[in-house]
Amino acid sequence: MNNIYFSYVYPSLFVLQSQDELGTPIPATTQSDEGPRSPIVVYQPTASGLIPTAQLPQTHQTLPSMWLEGLSGKHILSSLDFSKDHLRRLYNLAHSFRVALNKNKPLDQICRGKVMGNLFFEPSTRTSNSFAIAMQRLGGTVMHFSESTSSQTKGETVLDTVRILASYCDCLVIRHPGKGAIHALANSIVHKPIINAGDGIGEHPTQALLDVFTIREEIGTVNGLTITMVGDLANGRTVHSLARLLCLYKVKLRYVTHRDEFKMPPEVKSYVADRGIPQEEMTSLEEALPDTDVLYMTRVQTERMSDDKDARRDQFVVTPELMTLAKPRGMIVMHPLPRVGEISPKFDSDPRAAYFRQAEYGTHVRMALLAIVLANQK
Amino acid sequence: MNNIYFSYVYPSLFVLQSQDELGTPIPATTQSDEGPRSPIVVYQPTASGLIPTAQLPQTHQTLPSMWLEGLSGKHILSSLDFSKDHLRRLYNLAHSFRVALNKNKPLDQICRGKVMGNLFFEPSTRTSNSFAIAMQRLGGTVMHFSESTSSQTKGETVLDTVRILASYCDCLVIRHPGKGAIHALANSIVHKPIINAGDGIGEHPTQALLDVFTIREEIGTVNGLTITMVGDLANGRTVHSLARLLCLYKVKLRYVTHRDEFKMPPEVKSYVADRGIPQEEMTSLEEALPDTDVLYMTRVQTERMSDDKDARRDQFVVTPELMTLAKPRGMIVMHPLPRVGEISPKFDSDPRAAYFRQAEYGTHVRMALLAIVLANQK
Amino acid sequence: MNNIYFSYVYPSLFVLQSQDELGTPIPATTQSDEGPRSPIVVYQPTASGLIPTAQLPQTHQTLPSMWLEGLSGKHILSSLDFSKDHLRRLYNLAHSFRVALNKNKPLDQICRGKVMGNLFFEPSTRTSNSFAIAMQRLGGTVMHFSESTSSQTKGETVLDTVRILASYCDCLVIRHPGKGAIHALANSIVHKPIINAGDGIGEHPTQALLDVFTIREEIGTVNGLTITMVGDLANGRTVHSLARLLCLYKVKLRYVTHRDEFKMPPEVKSYVADRGIPQEEMTSLEEALPDTDVLYMTRVQTERMSDDKDARRDQFVVTPELMTLAKPRGMIVMHPLPRVGEISPKFDSDPRAAYFRQAEYGTHVRMALLAIVLANQK
Repeated sequence: MNNIYFSYVYPSLFVLQSQDELGTPIPATTQSDEGPRSPIVVYQPTASGLIPTAQLPQTHQTLPSMWLEGLSGKHILSSLDFSKDHLRRLYNLAHSFRVALNKNKPLDQICRGKVMGNLFFEPSTRTSNSFAIAMQRLGGTVMHFSESTSSQTKGETVLDTVRILASYCDCLVIRHPGKGAIHALANSIVHKPIINAGDGIGEHPTQALLDVFTIREEIGTVNGLTITMVGDLANGRTVHSLARLLCLYKVKLRYVTHRDEFKMPPEVKSYVADRGIPQEEMTSLEEALPDTDVLYMTRVQTERMSDDKDARRDQFVVTPELMTLAKPRGMIVMHPLPRVGEISPKFDSDPRAAYFRQAEYGTHVRMALLAIVLANQK
Repeated sequence: MNNIYFSYVYPSLFVLQSQDELGTPIPATTQSDEGPRSPIVVYQPTASGLIPTAQLPQTHQTLPSMWLEGLSGKHILSSLDFSKDHLRRLYNLAHSFRVALNKNKPLDQICRGKVMGNLFFEPSTRTSNSFAIAMQRLGGTVMHFSESTSSQTKGETVLDTVRILASYCDCLVIRHPGKGAIHALANSIVHKPIINAGDGIGEHPTQALLDVFTIREEIGTVNGLTITMVGDLANGRTVHSLARLLCLYKVKLRYVTHRDEFKMPPEVKSYVADRGIPQEEMTSLEEALPDTDVLYMTRVQTERMSDDKDARRDQFVVTPELMTLAKPRGMIVMHPLPRVGEISPKFDSDPRAAYFRQAEYGTHVRMALLAIVLANQK
Repeated sequence: MNNIYFSYVYPSLFVLQSQDELGTPIPATTQSDEGPRSPIVVYQPTASGLIPTAQLPQTHQTLPSMWLEGLSGKHILSSLDFSKDHLRRLYNLAHSFRVALNKNKPLDQICRGKVMGNLFFEPSTRTSNSFAIAMQRLGGTVMHFSESTSSQTKGETVLDTVRILASYCDCLVIRHPGKGAIHALANSIVHKPIINAGDGIGEHPTQALLDVFTIREEIGTVNGLTITMVGDLANGRTVHSLARLLCLYKVKLRYVTHRDEFKMPPEVKSYVADRGIPQEEMTSLEEALPDTDVLYMTRVQTERMSDDKDARRDQFVVTPELMTLAKPRGMIVMHPLPRVGEISPKFDSDPRAAYFRQAEYGTHVRMALLAIVLANQK
C-alpha cells in the first residue's frame, strides 16, 4: 500500500513502472489497519478551529515494496550479493533519481530525518563526498568520522568506536584498510545497516555497481557488449569486482595489458570462465579497439611498485588519434579516476568520454542504495 | 498558547503530560493577539486563484512554555545550575524525543532554519558528533569549527574568534581545555546561548545530565537507588559531576577503588555529605555488588599517570562471572566510554549492559537541551 | 510569473519592491503553459480518497526574474563584474534575507535540495564557514573539500579534481592560492556556477561586496560619504577591491598610513582617479577623523614582513579616547578581521563599532549571491 503514496509524491520515479504496479489511491481512513503511523500534519482554519487537512504518512517510510525485497535494513557488503533482479530494481530506482535530479525535482523527503554515519578509517575524499551528497540529496543528514586506525581513541577497539557511532545513526557507510574488517564489524552490528565503502584490497561494491550503471545509462543496455579492460589489471580492485559483476549479463570481456605483471589474476579469470562468459587476453589496444563497446581504462597502481617510471613506460594512452580506431558512436571510455596519464585531456571533449559522467552516476546509485536500505526501517 | 500547536504537530511528545497541560485547540484567528508571527504558508487553488489554506506558526518557535521557563536563550554552563524542576522538564522532553525517534517520527521542524556552532578548541569526536546529530535530528544545521588553542588564526584572541562565529550562528556548543574558559566567554557573549561541552578539568554538564537520564530511562526512577562508582574516582571529571547532580535525588552512593590514590576527592564527598546523601567508601567490588542498582564503571586516566601498567594492575573488571553476584534484573552497568579493559566484551550481550545505550541517551538529552535553548528565541 | 509565488511565500522579501513588481496571483490552473514543473504535493482526505489540495511549484525555482537577470547560473569571479544595477538588486535581496532572519522566518525553501561545493585549496575557516552557513540558511546542503595544492590526490590535476566535485554539486565556492587560478578553472567548467572565494593576491569579491553592504545597511546609503582607509594599504587585497568597488558610488576616499611602504598602490589610485572619485593621502588619523563617515581599519600584513615589531610600531590604534574626535553618531568603524591591535577591545561596546556586525552582513550577501546564482538553474 505504501507505493500509492510514493507514486503521488514522486510520480517521476515511476517512469519505468507499469501502471498496474501503482494501483489506485487509498482513502486515508483505511490506513489504520497498518497500525499507527507518524503523520505530517497540515492544518486548516475552520469555523470550529484549526483542524488537520491531511495526515500524510512519512514519505521516508514509503518506498514501494517491490524495491525493498531482500535489501531493506540489510548490510551491503559485496556487489556479488546482488542478484540480477536486485540489480534491475536498484538501477531502475537510480535511473528515476537521475531523471528527477535533472528535472530539478527535490527528493529530500525520502530520507528526511535520517542520519548516515560516514566512517572512514582510511582517507577517501571522493567516495566519502559522493556518499554524503547522495544522503543529502535525499534529505538526510551526515555524521562524518575519519580516523586512521593507528590513532584509535584512548585505546578503544574499532568495534567499540563503531558501536557507539552506530547508536547515533540510522545507517553506517564504512571504509577500512583491513580486508574483511567490514564484514567482521557487520557481524557484530546487526541492528543498523552497514554499507561497505571499501575494505583494503577486498571489496568496494558501490564502485562496481556504479560502473555497470554507467554502461546501462550511457548505452541503454549491458547485454551484447564487448567490454575491454586496460592497464593494471593485476592490482586494480575495481576491475576484479567489475569483471565478476558483469557475469550477470551476456557480455564479452577483453583484458589488454602492456606488461605481463599487470595481467588479470587467475582467480578472476576462472570465476568468469565458470559462468560461461567469453574472455580474451590481448597486448595490443589497437587490435582490441574496433569491436569494443566499453573501453575501461585503469591507472597503474604505482603505490605498490618500486619503480614508478618503469611501470608506466609503454602504457596505453587514450588519445583523439588512437580513438579514430574505435566506433565513432555508441561506445564509451570509462575510468574510475583519478587518472595520471592513461587518458589525454585532449580527449575530454569527445562525447565518448564518459569518465566524468561516471562519477556523477555514482551519486545516483548511492542514493538508490541508501533509499532502499533506509526505507521502512524501524 | 504555543503549546497547542506543538501538541498537534508532535502529539507523542506529550505522553508524559497531563491532559490539563495541553488545553484545547485555539482557532487560528485568535492568534493575532500574540503579535506578528512568521507563517509557513500552504496554498490552495480556488476559483479566485491561489490562496493560503493555513498559516502555521513556525514550529521551531512553539515549544510549550512549561519547558522553557528559565532556560530559553540561556547559557548552559554547569549541571549544577539545574533545579530538580528543570531536570524533570528536560527529561520529559528528552523522553518524548526518544519515543518519537523510536517510532520513526521526524522532529525536523523543531530547530528548522537554525544553525548550531560546534566549536572545539580541543578534539572530541564523540561529544562533537553527538551534539551535531542532536541538532540535525531537530532539523537544524551545524557549523563545525575545530582548532587547537595554540594555532589561533593570525594572532586573533579566542574571544574575537568566538564572537565572529557567534554572529553566524543561533547557538554555540563549545569545548575548551581551559578550566573556566567557557564561563569567561559566556560573560562576553550574551546574545547567543552557549552550551558548555567540557572545559578541561572543569565541567562537562551534558555528560552528567545524560548519565542521570540513562538511569531514569533504564530503571524508571532515580529515587531509592544504590549507585556504585568504580575505578579512578580521583581524576574522573564525570563521576564528580554525577555525584553532585545525584544529590537532587534520594540515592545512596558507594565509591569502590582499588588503590588509595583513586579515591573520591574530599570536596566532592563534603558536597554530597552537606546534602544529606549517604555515601560509603569500599575496596571490594564483590561486597558492593549485591545491593547495587547502578554500577558506574570508569577508566583509569592513564594520561595523567607515569606508569600505565601499574595503575591498572588489580583494577576491577566487570565479567559475566562477577556479575552473577549482582541483581539479575532491574540493575544496570554504565560506563562513560571509551573503556580499556574495565568491562569484558563478553558482558556486552547481557541485558544489564547499558553503556552503549547510554551513548544513545546522550543524543536525546542534547536534543532536549537544544530545543529548549533555541525555542522561541529571537 | 515565478515571482508571484515567491512574493507569497516570502512576502517580507519584497519590502523594497514596488507593488507593481509583484503583480497579482495567478490561478494554479494557468501554470501549465510553462511546461511540467515539479510540485510539492499536499493531500486532503475526501469522500473519494486522498487527493492533492495544491501543487506548489518548487520555491527554489522561483526567485523573481528581476533579481536574476545576467547573474543566474553565472560565475562570480570579480566584484568589478557587478554593475551598479546588479549591486542594487543583490543588496535588496540581501537586505530582505537579513530582515527575514531577524524576524525568525525560515528561508530554507530557496535552495532546498541543492548542494554547494566548498572547495578550499588554502585554509580559511572563516570564509568557508560563512559560505556554508549562507547555503544552510537557504535550505541547501554543503560538501566540504579542503586540500593543500601540494598534496594532490595520487597525482591528479586540480582541474580533474574540481571537475569531479563539480559533477556532484550544483555550484562551487573555490579558494585557491594561485592568482588567476579560479578564472582558469571557470573557463573549463562552464556548466556549474563558480564563486571566487579568494585567489591569492588576486580577488576576494565577496569581501568587497559585503563591505559595501555593511555601509549601506549601517548608514542607509553609500553616496555622499567620506570613507577613510587606515593601516597597511599596500598589501591589503581587501582595501584594493573596496576602493575600486566604491567607484560605483559618489564617495570621497582617504588613505591614512603611518609608513610610506604601506601607501595605496599607484594602480589602485589611478583606477579611482580615472573614475573621478576624489582621494586624499594623509599621515594623521586625528586629522582625517572628524569628517569621516566610515573608518576602515586594516591589519599590517606581517606575514610578508621581515620584522613584525617594526612594521607595527607607531601604527594607528582605535581607542575610545581617539574616537572622541570622530562624529558621535552616523559614522562607523569597520575591519575585515582578524585584528591584532589596530582596534582596542575597549571600543567594542561603542555603537559605532561595526566590525562584528560586518561579519554577519557577510552571511546575508553570500545568501543573496547563492540564491541568485542557483535560482532557476537547470
